[in-house]
Amino acid sequence: MSKEIRSDLYKRLNKDDAVVLLVDHQTGLLSLVRDIQPDQFKNNVLALADVAKYFNLPTILTTSFEDGPNGPLVPELREIFPDAPFIARPGQINAWDNEEFVAAVKATGRKQIIIAGVVTEVCVAFPALSALGEGYEVFVVTDASGTFNDITRNSALQRMQAAGAQLTSWFAVAGELHRDWRNDVIGLGTLFSNHIPDYRNLINSYIRASASK
Amino acid sequence: MSKEIRSDLYKRLNKDDAVVLLVDHQTGLLSLVRDIQPDQFKNNVLALADVAKYFNLPTILTTSFEDGPNGPLVPELREIFPDAPFIARPGQINAWDNEEFVAAVKATGRKQIIIAGVVTEVCVAFPALSALGEGYEVFVVTDASGTFNDITRNSALQRMQAAGAQLTSWFAVAGELHRDWRNDVIGLGTLFSNHIPDYRNLINSYIRASASK
Amino acid sequence: MSKEIRSDLYKRLNKDDAVVLLVDHQTGLLSLVRDIQPDQFKNNVLALADVAKYFNLPTILTTSFEDGPNGPLVPELREIFPDAPFIARPGQINAWDNEEFVAAVKATGRKQIIIAGVVTEVCVAFPALSALGEGYEVFVVTDASGTFNDITRNSALQRMQAAGAQLTSWFAVAGELHRDWRNDVIGLGTLFSNHIPDYRNLINSYIRASASK
Amino acid sequence: MSKEIRSDLYKRLNKDDAVVLLVDHQTGLLSLVRDIQPDQFKNNVLALADVAKYFNLPTILTTSFEDGPNGPLVPELREIFPDAPFIARPGQINAWDNEEFVAAVKATGRKQIIIAGVVTEVCVAFPALSALGEGYEVFVVTDASGTFNDITRNSALQRMQAAGAQLTSWFAVAGELHRDWRNDVIGLGTLFSNHIPDYRNLINSYIRASASK
Amino acid sequence: MSKEIRSDLYKRLNKDDAVVLLVDHQTGLLSLVRDIQPDQFKNNVLALADVAKYFNLPTILTTSFEDGPNGPLVPELREIFPDAPFIARPGQINAWDNEEFVAAVKATGRKQIIIAGVVTEVCVAFPALSALGEGYEVFVVTDASGTFNDITRNSALQRMQAAGAQLTSWFAVAGELHRDWRNDVIGLGTLFSNHIPDYRNLINSYIRASASK
Amino acid sequence: MSKEIRSDLYKRLNKDDAVVLLVDHQTGLLSLVRDIQPDQFKNNVLALADVAKYFNLPTILTTSFEDGPNGPLVPELREIFPDAPFIARPGQINAWDNEEFVAAVKATGRKQIIIAGVVTEVCVAFPALSALGEGYEVFVVTDASGTFNDITRNSALQRMQAAGAQLTSWFAVAGELHRDWRNDVIGLGTLFSNHIPDYRNLINSYIRASASK
Amino acid sequence: MSKEIRSDLYKRLNKDDAVVLLVDHQTGLLSLVRDIQPDQFKNNVLALADVAKYFNLPTILTTSFEDGPNGPLVPELREIFPDAPFIARPGQINAWDNEEFVAAVKATGRKQIIIAGVVTEVCVAFPALSALGEGYEVFVVTDASGTFNDITRNSALQRMQAAGAQLTSWFAVAGELHRDWRNDVIGLGTLFSNHIPDYRNLINSYIRASASK
Amino acid sequence: MSKEIRSDLYKRLNKDDAVVLLVDHQTGLLSLVRDIQPDQFKNNVLALADVAKYFNLPTILTTSFEDGPNGPLVPELREIFPDAPFIARPGQINAWDNEEFVAAVKATGRKQIIIAGVVTEVCVAFPALSALGEGYEVFVVTDASGTFNDITRNSALQRMQAAGAQLTSWFAVAGELHRDWRNDVIGLGTLFSNHIPDYRNLINSYIRASASK
Repeated sequence: MSKEIRSDLYKRLNKDDAVVLLVDHQTGLLSLVRDIQPDQFKNNVLALADVAKYFNLPTILTTSFEDGPNGPLVPELREIFPDAPFIARPGQINAWDNEEFVAAVKATGRKQIIIAGVVTEVCVAFPALSALGEGYEVFVVTDASGTFNDITRNSALQRMQAAGAQLTSWFAVAGELHRDWRNDVIGLGTLFSNHIPDYRNLINSYIRASASK
Repeated sequence: MSKEIRSDLYKRLNKDDAVVLLVDHQTGLLSLVRDIQPDQFKNNVLALADVAKYFNLPTILTTSFEDGPNGPLVPELREIFPDAPFIARPGQINAWDNEEFVAAVKATGRKQIIIAGVVTEVCVAFPALSALGEGYEVFVVTDASGTFNDITRNSALQRMQAAGAQLTSWFAVAGELHRDWRNDVIGLGTLFSNHIPDYRNLINSYIRASASK
Repeated sequence: MSKEIRSDLYKRLNKDDAVVLLVDHQTGLLSLVRDIQPDQFKNNVLALADVAKYFNLPTILTTSFEDGPNGPLVPELREIFPDAPFIARPGQINAWDNEEFVAAVKATGRKQIIIAGVVTEVCVAFPALSALGEGYEVFVVTDASGTFNDITRNSALQRMQAAGAQLTSWFAVAGELHRDWRNDVIGLGTLFSNHIPDYRNLINSYIRASASK
Repeated sequence: MSKEIRSDLYKRLNKDDAVVLLVDHQTGLLSLVRDIQPDQFKNNVLALADVAKYFNLPTILTTSFEDGPNGPLVPELREIFPDAPFIARPGQINAWDNEEFVAAVKATGRKQIIIAGVVTEVCVAFPALSALGEGYEVFVVTDASGTFNDITRNSALQRMQAAGAQLTSWFAVAGELHRDWRNDVIGLGTLFSNHIPDYRNLINSYIRASASK
Repeated sequence: MSKEIRSDLYKRLNKDDAVVLLVDHQTGLLSLVRDIQPDQFKNNVLALADVAKYFNLPTILTTSFEDGPNGPLVPELREIFPDAPFIARPGQINAWDNEEFVAAVKATGRKQIIIAGVVTEVCVAFPALSALGEGYEVFVVTDASGTFNDITRNSALQRMQAAGAQLTSWFAVAGELHRDWRNDVIGLGTLFSNHIPDYRNLINSYIRASASK
Repeated sequence: MSKEIRSDLYKRLNKDDAVVLLVDHQTGLLSLVRDIQPDQFKNNVLALADVAKYFNLPTILTTSFEDGPNGPLVPELREIFPDAPFIARPGQINAWDNEEFVAAVKATGRKQIIIAGVVTEVCVAFPALSALGEGYEVFVVTDASGTFNDITRNSALQRMQAAGAQLTSWFAVAGELHRDWRNDVIGLGTLFSNHIPDYRNLINSYIRASASK
Repeated sequence: MSKEIRSDLYKRLNKDDAVVLLVDHQTGLLSLVRDIQPDQFKNNVLALADVAKYFNLPTILTTSFEDGPNGPLVPELREIFPDAPFIARPGQINAWDNEEFVAAVKATGRKQIIIAGVVTEVCVAFPALSALGEGYEVFVVTDASGTFNDITRNSALQRMQAAGAQLTSWFAVAGELHRDWRNDVIGLGTLFSNHIPDYRNLINSYIRASASK
Repeated sequence: MSKEIRSDLYKRLNKDDAVVLLVDHQTGLLSLVRDIQPDQFKNNVLALADVAKYFNLPTILTTSFEDGPNGPLVPELREIFPDAPFIARPGQINAWDNEEFVAAVKATGRKQIIIAGVVTEVCVAFPALSALGEGYEVFVVTDASGTFNDITRNSALQRMQAAGAQLTSWFAVAGELHRDWRNDVIGLGTLFSNHIPDYRNLINSYIRASASK
């Protein structure tokens, strides 16, 4: 066994070094997402947004061609982040090709990128690969990113992983950032309750059972 | 071809003759539901509840053993129907074996039963079969009823259908009760938007596109 | 064994007695269809349309709220049937509640209804059940009808079957109407080749192999 | 709506009129079962056995060719029912063709048959159809019966249902026989806890939460 | 409970009254079959053929357009039944529309039809429905019949069942015809061993274990 | 975190350095493809071809044994690329073993290979691995490549990825080559509309909504 | 071919150097597990526990917030390891952030970590990554770890593998530790028999067959 | 782009340097295989065996505990390789721990190992990892190796790949060894025809079509 300490093996999210990129969650493009059931996908995206907001992570919104069939940004995201930088790209498919977008990322001074978007192999993979090439740590939120089918999803995820991206989920992002429940039990519990029906049920069962004694 | 008119072939829901029975959607029992993904199931149940409320259908809530592992009624349902009859059954597994429950149904004077519950083959099937036996028309909301797996679900649905039940979904119930969009376009559209992410996207895309002209 | 002849057991499609109803295949509503993969569903719908055209079946188009989020009729259908009755319903959810629509059906003088639409449990099931109640034979083209998921599809199909509908597919409709390949080998073969990739491959392989001798 | 009372619509299990038939759950034949995952199938079969024992239902065991590749009866079943009639059929494929077996059924004086076995389309379907033909009510425990794949299962279940069988599950059988939790809360709860991991978890969570107050 | 004896509830196959119809298992058409995996489908079809041969059932082969892209009858079937009536239909899509085919069926004097073919909703369903209409008992071998997908298969099977067909599998056909293993243990065992890998393994394990004592 | 810039992490497609290889999309071999539904697979292959044509990428066609059961190249591909090099290999299974094929690739002077074919683990994997070994960047279009089942597909894709291939889809290839919608909105939009039914619907809904204002 | 010997390629479990970590298998959290069927998951977890016990591996139990909705440790695990270190973490989400937990691991002096838990991407992945970073060999028991769905599971497993973890199953762990059946045929056979129904059937068939000679 | 030639990227099978290891395909153990349908798995294993025989590859058979519930080697394999080394291991779980087995491998003088077995994560993975550690190239035939479910399969395959194994299929092995159809068209075509029903159909269709000219 290798006895050496490899402190780089665990790329660990740090709430003081992470920025969230939500790419092209637009009302039209969402109809292309066929690898995750719609109720579940909507919940995952909003959960990730709530995680970003809960941890006060700088968050950057971007869309492609809002004034066309792609449709506007999902209104809920705009409401959650009314003050976030919002770059409506005039044409660049890879958000990282948009100078304003990259400038917004760099302005945060953060080096860990949490990214999700539609569709996975384009709107997520291209900026993720670009950012990896520039030395960022990239965390792909796989369950808040959608695409046409399992084949296109797996191909996109494997391509990003091969380039060094960390594959994760909105729930893992929340846990990794929070570190310790004692930092805020109510806050994190509420967040989970709002986005995990099974967890909400556990809480409600627990409250009743505790009271029934 | 049979030329005769069979006016009885289409059992058609009528908002003046329908009553909704929500059976055992309890926080504990919901963890048993494994034939529908949790986000989707939660949405379906709340959608059916909103349909009932929207059409002012008399609605009856019932639970089994709230003060035990089955857990309390899902709080959202209680909030949507604060004034509905709520029969916490002391032990009867088939809600129809509970006199108070049957009395509540009969008190509505209605003859069309819309029913959903957990788990399908017990909490839905038993009262559905009992009601059919007493001459009610029964509409099983299959996507707001949950059970262990596909085999138990299909067996339960086939048993009820063989006895004369109509298999339907919350969306079909809404459409069948509403009859004509002109009765209230905004109301029904809002209901659909709240529970069908794809439909909400259509609306938001439409609003943007209309405005962009 | 029952020896009696039951000529009514086989409801057999007859090209001189059939009319095709295409209900609410609208560009917006199609994003709700999640029980069939999009490429496959598009092909099935256009294949049914081509079958209707090939057999010169009277065909009736109808939509619900074209001027809204539901979107317009899929343009390809309008192009295939430029002269077909096209009833843009002002609000009726069940097309059979629209007098103009029923009048169009009755004007054909036909008693066999071939129906497909979006979504299955509403736009197909309601008029299908209404038509059954008035003595029509109803053939539901299950693979050209779409809905949210397997549960809602199966519930809708079982409800219609229980009321007497025949469940069929676009390919079976074509075969049942054609009766004998000798009526037009090239025509039916072309239709199949255009909508069944495997069949097109068979033909191309055959042509090459025959020529290679 | 049909107002008439149809007391025959609900074939309801009665613990004083039911007999359980466990057909050919043999160690060899179980390797043929591919439509249910093995851990789940084993649990379902033993759960049904425990239900039979719990309600003191007369239970009849039968096997086909124990002294050959089909293998012996699953030992657990023999242990649960050490005194049950056990008919090792010398050759009859349909257990109902075995006079001793039918005699054992008739000796119980019961008219409701609860049946499960391996494989569904043969060892369950044949005696089920025979019994229906002789006027018995037949309840097929679909999740305690196994076969090669979904197609063979569904075909078998539909054949039996068309002949009048009730499709049910071991959990529904338990609920239908018990009628009222108050008859024995601990007993039924223990049975469920032993065979439904999710239910056991609910109980353990409840106990802890109640105690934690 | 209904006490009456309904001897007609169990349509039971009888080897002296059954005829097997294998419809359009052609090398080209088989590429259309996408609802069953090819190795499995090939095995099921050949297993049914071996069952027919084993029980000396009169068997009728038919094809549609052999001299075209549909391709010839699968050679193995021709080899198994070198002397069977083989009707290469000149054009009739429903084999029952071919007088020679019907004459061949009637010449057998048998009233139970066992049928399988490609594709299910056309080549099986049409003659099955025609035969039912003429008073035959029809047994559809669902796992030896193939079609495009699950939706088309289920629609076809439900249509046939609604008209009175019995849904079965090749294995159930074998068991129902054989009635008693003692009629020929080796013969039936060999047949199963040749077509059920799990059963062959059971036999080989048994032989070894018996010898190892 | 690694701060270094790794410009090699993102292998980015460049329309001036890419060549497309379409390997063995033959009418016979396509019947072997069972891991993607036929309508979807046909669409994916033609979409990739249209992408190649749209970007004027040099494209090379090759087949194996056209004059035999493998069948000819799918005619649509020949029509899209009437002037492309077309190497009908006399026997080499790995196209890269064919000198004429490799010469055609080298003649383009390009170093990025976009490859798709049938079947994935042979006709795609072998030349892809060979090209990687010679220093080419290889982009495997996973959804335009087909094989027997998920196991063989995943094994093939993992083998290629482990050797350095980029896994991608036809849609990602289009987006990566185009870089900016402003280069040609109509052109790319039309391409997407022709091959993504959901996208065509978005466009048609948008046009109608914009006009309806 | 590389001829060099790479003794480090096979990270091989050694029963004298392995420690088992069971993380957060709590009665509440188990309701979140939706990627493995409950009967199967329960069996896998208990099987891993029995393996740990059988090989006398030091085993460490830990939970997060037992006195809340997460619920207590599954009682069966506590019973199997009554004397094992049991760290009820006061708040740390990553067990490796808990000093007592890490101390317990280090106290064993072992360098191979076998880990399983709920949910995979948090309770397993975080400590696994931390341990890899400190030079431990980590073996993830994938089938005794559960999470929300396939996407979150695969993302978590790929993240761990990319950091050097070995992906394995409880059965592989048992085989890799045992090395040679002759070390204890009865013991290992019993363990397998208790947790693999198919294996139990093999044994019972074998015993009967051996005896029948 | 990296311009360097990396001749090591493509580990290419060579019929003069490959040896085939078939590990524990025993009649009992096969009942444990649940990740591939039995007809398909049997075919894949026999296809690999036929490939080995066709290319005259040295082949080594091994089993574990034949004289017990694991059962004997599948007889067909013994028949195909009557003269192959056959090591019935007395107890070693990892075949590579058996000196006789390793000696047999080394006696072939070959450095490329083609391996398949039951179950994948033990009988395949252990010797594969051991062989990789000793400098062999290892090719895992994933579709001729079976295990309990998708999770255990994928974990095993990823573990082997991470250690450098090539994942492949029996069909890819055949193609990679054969290199050029002209080496023997009839031989390879026959092999494919015997194990790929779709390919056999292509050949039969081709023969008929060619003759029909």
